[in-house]
Amino acid sequence: MVRIMARISAREACEAKLREVLQALIAPSRGESGCVSYELFENEDRPLEFVTVEQWADQAAADAHLATPHVAAAMARAGDFLAQAPLIHRFRQVG
Amino acid sequence: MVRIMARISAREACEAKLREVLQALIAPSRGESGCVSYELFENEDRPLEFVTVEQWADQAAADAHLATPHVAAAMARAGDFLAQAPLIHRFRQVG
Repeated sequence: MVRIMARISAREACEAKLREVLQALIAPSRGESGCVSYELFENEDRPLEFVTVEQWADQAAADAHLATPHVAAAMARAGDFLAQAPLIHRFRQVG
Repeated sequence: MVRIMARISAREACEAKLREVLQALIAPSRGESGCVSYELFENEDRPLEFVTVEQWADQAAADAHLATPHVAAAMARAGDFLAQAPLIHRFRQVG
């Protein structure tokens, strides 16, 4: 099992548009064969920050996700709304 | 339901000691009456960063957690191992 969390920061005033792009990504991502779970969160204390919490069957599934047409389309659509490149990291559960 | 994620960064070379403090906090936190789930993760790409992913029954339960003796003890023990104060934020699931 591979766990990914991505921090995605919106430019000022672009939060609603970025949310729309990220929400559109959920269903096709959950539909990928290696997707165990895929959830999107919004930081209530820092409204411009979104976080995805993802579980993939293995590293190949996580890599394949990033190469899908729906991710490519989302990256293209999100470009203008991002404050910086998404911070995508792998996590290991330690408790 | 209240969801909290906390980012906790270790000082260089203090990762193992901080991990120990954070792992000791898991059982008593899960034992609190308002705790729905409490998980600890380590960033595999940035080894000094830990993240807790927590669900609490309501805001009162999340507040009560921060006021427990086990959290106070952990904060005191962790003090020397922290690169900065933990970043503790509430999140709303949006997908």
